[in-house]
Amino acid sequence: MNTVEIITKKRNKEILTNEEIVYLINSYTRGKIPDYQFSAFLMAAYLNGMTEDETANLTRAMLFSGKVIDLSQISGAKIDKHSTGGVGDKTSLILAPIVASAGVNVPMISGRGLGHTGGTLDKLEAIPGFRTDINLRKYKQVINKCGAVLVGQTKDIAPADRLMYALRDVTATVESIPLITGSIMSKKLAEGIDGLVLDVKTGSGAFMKKMSDAKKLAESLINTAKNFDKKVMAFITDMNQPLGSYIGNWLEVYESILVLQGGMVDDLNEVTFNLSGAMIMLGGKAHTLEEGIEIAKYEVKTGRAFDKFLEIVKLQNGDISFLKNPKKYPKAKFSEKITATKSGYIKTLNNYEIGMAALELGAGRLTKEDVINPKAGIIFRPKIGTQVKKGEVIAELFSDKKKSMDTAKTRINKSIEYSKTKTNKVKLIKSILT
Amino acid sequence: MNTVEIITKKRNKEILTNEEIVYLINSYTRGKIPDYQFSAFLMAAYLNGMTEDETANLTRAMLFSGKVIDLSQISGAKIDKHSTGGVGDKTSLILAPIVASAGVNVPMISGRGLGHTGGTLDKLEAIPGFRTDINLRKYKQVINKCGAVLVGQTKDIAPADRLMYALRDVTATVESIPLITGSIMSKKLAEGIDGLVLDVKTGSGAFMKKMSDAKKLAESLINTAKNFDKKVMAFITDMNQPLGSYIGNWLEVYESILVLQGGMVDDLNEVTFNLSGAMIMLGGKAHTLEEGIEIAKYEVKTGRAFDKFLEIVKLQNGDISFLKNPKKYPKAKFSEKITATKSGYIKTLNNYEIGMAALELGAGRLTKEDVINPKAGIIFRPKIGTQVKKGEVIAELFSDKKKSMDTAKTRINKSIEYSKTKTNKVKLIKSILT
Repeated sequence: MNTVEIITKKRNKEILTNEEIVYLINSYTRGKIPDYQFSAFLMAAYLNGMTEDETANLTRAMLFSGKVIDLSQISGAKIDKHSTGGVGDKTSLILAPIVASAGVNVPMISGRGLGHTGGTLDKLEAIPGFRTDINLRKYKQVINKCGAVLVGQTKDIAPADRLMYALRDVTATVESIPLITGSIMSKKLAEGIDGLVLDVKTGSGAFMKKMSDAKKLAESLINTAKNFDKKVMAFITDMNQPLGSYIGNWLEVYESILVLQGGMVDDLNEVTFNLSGAMIMLGGKAHTLEEGIEIAKYEVKTGRAFDKFLEIVKLQNGDISFLKNPKKYPKAKFSEKITATKSGYIKTLNNYEIGMAALELGAGRLTKEDVINPKAGIIFRPKIGTQVKKGEVIAELFSDKKKSMDTAKTRINKSIEYSKTKTNKVKLIKSILT
Repeated sequence: MNTVEIITKKRNKEILTNEEIVYLINSYTRGKIPDYQFSAFLMAAYLNGMTEDETANLTRAMLFSGKVIDLSQISGAKIDKHSTGGVGDKTSLILAPIVASAGVNVPMISGRGLGHTGGTLDKLEAIPGFRTDINLRKYKQVINKCGAVLVGQTKDIAPADRLMYALRDVTATVESIPLITGSIMSKKLAEGIDGLVLDVKTGSGAFMKKMSDAKKLAESLINTAKNFDKKVMAFITDMNQPLGSYIGNWLEVYESILVLQGGMVDDLNEVTFNLSGAMIMLGGKAHTLEEGIEIAKYEVKTGRAFDKFLEIVKLQNGDISFLKNPKKYPKAKFSEKITATKSGYIKTLNNYEIGMAALELGAGRLTKEDVINPKAGIIFRPKIGTQVKKGEVIAELFSDKKKSMDTAKTRINKSIEYSKTKTNKVKLIKSILT
């Protein structure tokens, strides 16, 4: 096959055959197609799109560029969740123990923080001793023992995605629905799952700012999952403000403990119980989403979900004494309270700016070499629609870097738009697609 | 400036500033932007296009990536011609001496054969001793002495184009009007010309098969020339059949001699005298195209044009004894006549196939390493509309490679479509744009 002819086809808006897509992905992964040809293909695919079939074939080629984990020896359904990423989105930490506790396996391969968003691996590693880099044997062992495992991507999983992602990042071809679909689904399908719940975020703190783009991505992900005979359900949820009130790695573990112990964090509870309920339903332990949600709540109420969390963390080498007694966790060197600059109602928040502020405090990486400070972050209380009084404490910053406090504070203050008149709360779950 | 942001702008159909284009071209030429980013930009430019201003800025950036020849010391107008390439297109060899003889300087930097088309340099080098690789000092000397010079591109001329062309060739981004415009015009403007006559070919033997594409390219070239304050005129001419009857390097020199000595080769004469007339007019030696054509014909009639040809060739080290006595030129080892397979009228010719047949016989390169055989080629007599009788000789093949004769013959026979009823001649000059 001829690489230039395949690029030409995509350039001319023609549909590529499965053979052509397999040739492209395999040859690129093996270094037989140079970056400069593959990036021309990526840009043509970005601008001319790919059909449902092409996207499924792309996903399959990326999936089979590496190892597909076989969990058939493990009894019971295996259901995972994927979120497109946001600010304060710690649902994975809460739902994995809930769903496992309800009898559905959760084999979860997660990623690290990207841009202004946090990453599940970084959050888990805030727990002293927690290992996310465990091998395949241990992966199966942990899920077999406790019904859930939370790890990072190994080199064996979808190597095509790793290469493609690095190239997309520097050639302005990231925000493409078929390419995003291939990237997400090739990794998720490699886990050996039976079904997948998708949380596609939309709003100022999401990668898909517009609802219409979020919907297109959700549909593309659903189509691809179905093409692989996987059970699937997608939620489009709001990311115009942080999910919960805690942003930053240990802070998010802490808020997850609150929820797992029955605490009420309105928005975080709503999203987490919906996603958990859907996973429980896809796993065959509930007939409806509502029933799944009830089961999820019950697992929390009985304390079994929190116990499951301790079990998972222990099996992955984490020190559970910090989970049982979060107050013993070391504090950041510096903290500073932010007060409302006006009296009124919160009208809008620039959630990207809030995410970037947390990142600057040390909760994320500005460069690839940066080391994350698990203690750094923000507690941000008000929600859109909340009434505040001038001078009232609305947020608190934590960091070991004193000079980052001022820039973070400026970002936070700039991110808030006040209104004299009452403003409406944001609807959290914007759409459910199956 | 940030390369990814510039690619993103073009991807999003935004208009790039001159600074952004200059940054891209300069950084790429100096190796500071990697091929994989530049190819993503090329594909975005291919698919989203570039405005007139962007194209002019691109051309300028490519032009100033190298040396611009200063011919201001040489008195009189300097006018060149550029053809987009075809089969049997030897007009440069004829019009350079005609126009120089009429008192207009012709500083011509030409290329080699590309794909199925011939190249002026390859044709000139069929003349024993002829040097196309002369330095800038000699370039100025020759044009100063005889009013014309015919050379190849040096490394100093538009190095950005050489790099970009090599990358476009392997990333399916060749056939883009703004990119073609930048490539052609950056090289032509580097010659130090005052004006340019363009011969944009259209039809089965051209790169622009469709008239609409040829027109768009002609307009883009004209706009760019005007942006640089150059006099310009474009002809869109037919390339559905070979121009003249001789295809192959020495064969084309031979046919050029015929025309320069006053011979009548209808179609070749028509195109050559029109292009010559336009150059003479742009050079200020005629008020109208018609007057320019009359002057061109007069230069041939008086014998001055042929004498000028001998003068140019001599100054560039060519052996003019072969021009004075073409019969002494060595013959190809093998020759074979092709006869009409039917009686009737020629309806269509696949001129691409005729060009490829000549190439296979040795007139062009199938791979970069191939050495051209100047004796190889085809004499192809009939034109679309010509009446032929079955068994009548219509073509003759020449080659040193016996086994290439059969494949070339098959190509020629396949390229001809006969009709029982009378067919129309083809209109040669389809459009003149200024």
